[in-house]
Amino acid sequence: MYALGDWRRTHYSSEVNSEMDGQEIIIMGWNHSIRKLGKLVFIILRDREGTIQIVAPKQKVSEETFATAKSLGKEDVMAIKGKVVANEKAPAGFEVIPIEIKILNKADTPLPLDPSEKVSADIDTRLDKRFLDLRRPKIQSLFKLRSEVLKSIRNTFHDNGFIDVDTPKLVASATEGGTELFPISYFDKEAFLGQSPQLYKQMMMAAGFDRVFEIGPIFRAEEHNTRRHLNEAISIDCEMSFADEKDAMEILEKVINNAFTDIYNNNQKELQTLGIDLKVQETPFPRIEYTEAVDMVNAKGVEMEWGEDFSRPAEAALGEMMDGFYFITDWPTEIRPFYTLPNEDNPKLCKAFDLMYKDLEISSGAQRNHKYDLLVEGIKRMGLNPEGFGTYLEAFKYGMPPHSGWGVGIERLMMIMACQQNIRECVLFPRDRQRLTP
Amino acid sequence: MYALGDWRRTHYSSEVNSEMDGQEIIIMGWNHSIRKLGKLVFIILRDREGTIQIVAPKQKVSEETFATAKSLGKEDVMAIKGKVVANEKAPAGFEVIPIEIKILNKADTPLPLDPSEKVSADIDTRLDKRFLDLRRPKIQSLFKLRSEVLKSIRNTFHDNGFIDVDTPKLVASATEGGTELFPISYFDKEAFLGQSPQLYKQMMMAAGFDRVFEIGPIFRAEEHNTRRHLNEAISIDCEMSFADEKDAMEILEKVINNAFTDIYNNNQKELQTLGIDLKVQETPFPRIEYTEAVDMVNAKGVEMEWGEDFSRPAEAALGEMMDGFYFITDWPTEIRPFYTLPNEDNPKLCKAFDLMYKDLEISSGAQRNHKYDLLVEGIKRMGLNPEGFGTYLEAFKYGMPPHSGWGVGIERLMMIMACQQNIRECVLFPRDRQRLTP
Repeated sequence: MYALGDWRRTHYSSEVNSEMDGQEIIIMGWNHSIRKLGKLVFIILRDREGTIQIVAPKQKVSEETFATAKSLGKEDVMAIKGKVVANEKAPAGFEVIPIEIKILNKADTPLPLDPSEKVSADIDTRLDKRFLDLRRPKIQSLFKLRSEVLKSIRNTFHDNGFIDVDTPKLVASATEGGTELFPISYFDKEAFLGQSPQLYKQMMMAAGFDRVFEIGPIFRAEEHNTRRHLNEAISIDCEMSFADEKDAMEILEKVINNAFTDIYNNNQKELQTLGIDLKVQETPFPRIEYTEAVDMVNAKGVEMEWGEDFSRPAEAALGEMMDGFYFITDWPTEIRPFYTLPNEDNPKLCKAFDLMYKDLEISSGAQRNHKYDLLVEGIKRMGLNPEGFGTYLEAFKYGMPPHSGWGVGIERLMMIMACQQNIRECVLFPRDRQRLTP
Repeated sequence: MYALGDWRRTHYSSEVNSEMDGQEIIIMGWNHSIRKLGKLVFIILRDREGTIQIVAPKQKVSEETFATAKSLGKEDVMAIKGKVVANEKAPAGFEVIPIEIKILNKADTPLPLDPSEKVSADIDTRLDKRFLDLRRPKIQSLFKLRSEVLKSIRNTFHDNGFIDVDTPKLVASATEGGTELFPISYFDKEAFLGQSPQLYKQMMMAAGFDRVFEIGPIFRAEEHNTRRHLNEAISIDCEMSFADEKDAMEILEKVINNAFTDIYNNNQKELQTLGIDLKVQETPFPRIEYTEAVDMVNAKGVEMEWGEDFSRPAEAALGEMMDGFYFITDWPTEIRPFYTLPNEDNPKLCKAFDLMYKDLEISSGAQRNHKYDLLVEGIKRMGLNPEGFGTYLEAFKYGMPPHSGWGVGIERLMMIMACQQNIRECVLFPRDRQRLTP
């Protein structure tokens, strides 16, 4: 008992069908449900790819196999060697008659959360018992989609000449200001967790890498606890040289359009499990200038001044008017980060953009300021100290090309694609103000 | 000056050739070197893909263009609109005659490090001025290979049914013991940086994900400062259910063999720049049992007892006898982590393996202990407290399948592939005991 021995799975549940009538197979998974009808035991085995029905009639299987079948508890782990038998009356058109059953592990009772039940427990209970919650086909489907979305995004980057890089998450100083940072003790020094790879990906432009992307964790010690924020997230970042903000927006459109198209073409099974009717939105996405967006918000009766960022009610107002993805461009320079390039002709506006989906911000990007003097001015204007920027600033002194880029949180993208209202649904083990386990 | 305007690169340097005689192109990059011979200026423009020669004869270009060409300093960033002119006497069989030159940014003089010189500065100076060091074609080639290796590895995982996951780097407790952890203050709580995704990827097996991989940062507060260790690294981790350690070793062989094969087939240019004659080692890699390896080490005159881990001199002795990749299997249970599964017939040995390359450890893996009671015993035997393990241990109570997995550091893999002696060469911005910047 409990040892796999030389047994290996021959098929996932989804790979077995009635045309395999008479074939011997080995399937492995969990006891999703069991019904005992005297001399007949029905077992639903669940694996990652679906479920499959096993029928053990007392007169057709060995005594030991029948006893093992009857002894199975909910969520026990098992391997079944059996024969496929076509049967028109079975729900899938076939059943599996077991030849031998190995119990590979037992599950205690009662289960703290039952994966065979529809999602019902509150989100905190589900996250506390995440390993059980994640057994649900619906929840699993979301993370299968996420894996495929990341694959698609990386393919788009590679196909467009971007180099995959990893930059450090342990950083020496809290240079960017604004968002709060988590402090670490790094041997005898103080250090911080990176809140974004921004400064590093810009340095990679000075390094002549031309186009880079990075998909990795970012850490933000923000106090707010909303359905749209996390304290640890996975950020998709890119930066490209000799390119303006419009070039960066085009790459972003490609990345998102390809991701939706790839999922639409390859993952209908997961979409169906999630009950999602995925629409691939055509590119180019609509562009609205910031000033126009402010007017739209005011026209909707939500008051805001030119020069303010969009509040939640303002975003909601925009979301009511705009369907799907759209860009907001030409932002006031003073409400964007210091590394944003102001327009040459009207420096009150800058070459920044946000990508929105209805009322949700998906991405921020811009053409960056590549001129040393202007950058130092910008840093001072934000009340930051240029001396804290070390090598980052130095990189602008010795041949920094014009460059542009953006960042997207994979979790927010998954909220949109998988129609989720709470960002925690899109993370295996989320981290927020209260939650640090499991 | 400094603005890109509507100019866009039409070709990388490597895409221009003598058959394009007469064609107008736009190239962008750095002034790698310049020679002024009275009425003639020779410029070598360097971009990510190589270098290209521009010749500006005073009588053939506009006065302004000639003046701009002459004014160029080393490592200035420029865009050149020019005409390709076939010329048998030119080193590449053609030159570019400039029509217009835009200077996009100036580089201060003197440069703290000259990218056009052969690598010579000591590694600390190079890492301090990494953005300049990384402009060197040789250094850049290593990171192009790294990007392609990661792409290949992800493809192998996807092709073999592994789901890409991200697990948290902020963890609540120092459960695994042994290696030192970096403490963080997480709001009002104490937390730590994850030293490996081990416990999380095992929980993903309990969650029924069947096969997962993760490529992400790990953080180790180890004091030692060697040429083979980093305090922040990128770990390639995988875990698979219903599989023993031999299955895990086969996946590892596939991952490494495919990576070497893909690089061999697609990246000869970078290999040549690095001066590497890459050999793809055939699989299966040789397997040596631990006990046999101890005998080999002793026979080489390096003393070690059965039950000890291999010291550096012991690894060196093995490296002299073994060429290329090889596995060490069947380790003593007591020197492997608590989550390793002991052999059923002889529990003094366990189902662990290391993958070595000559004298360098590349990977550790094992079939894991999936039995709750045995696991608790193992935790206690290591002097750890089972109560600290929370949900991790709980996951073994409710249906944990047999599973196996391993981890590989991308930096060590790149040391081997790119023939590097110092692991810092394989990281853009390395973190070690002394180094936290840039």
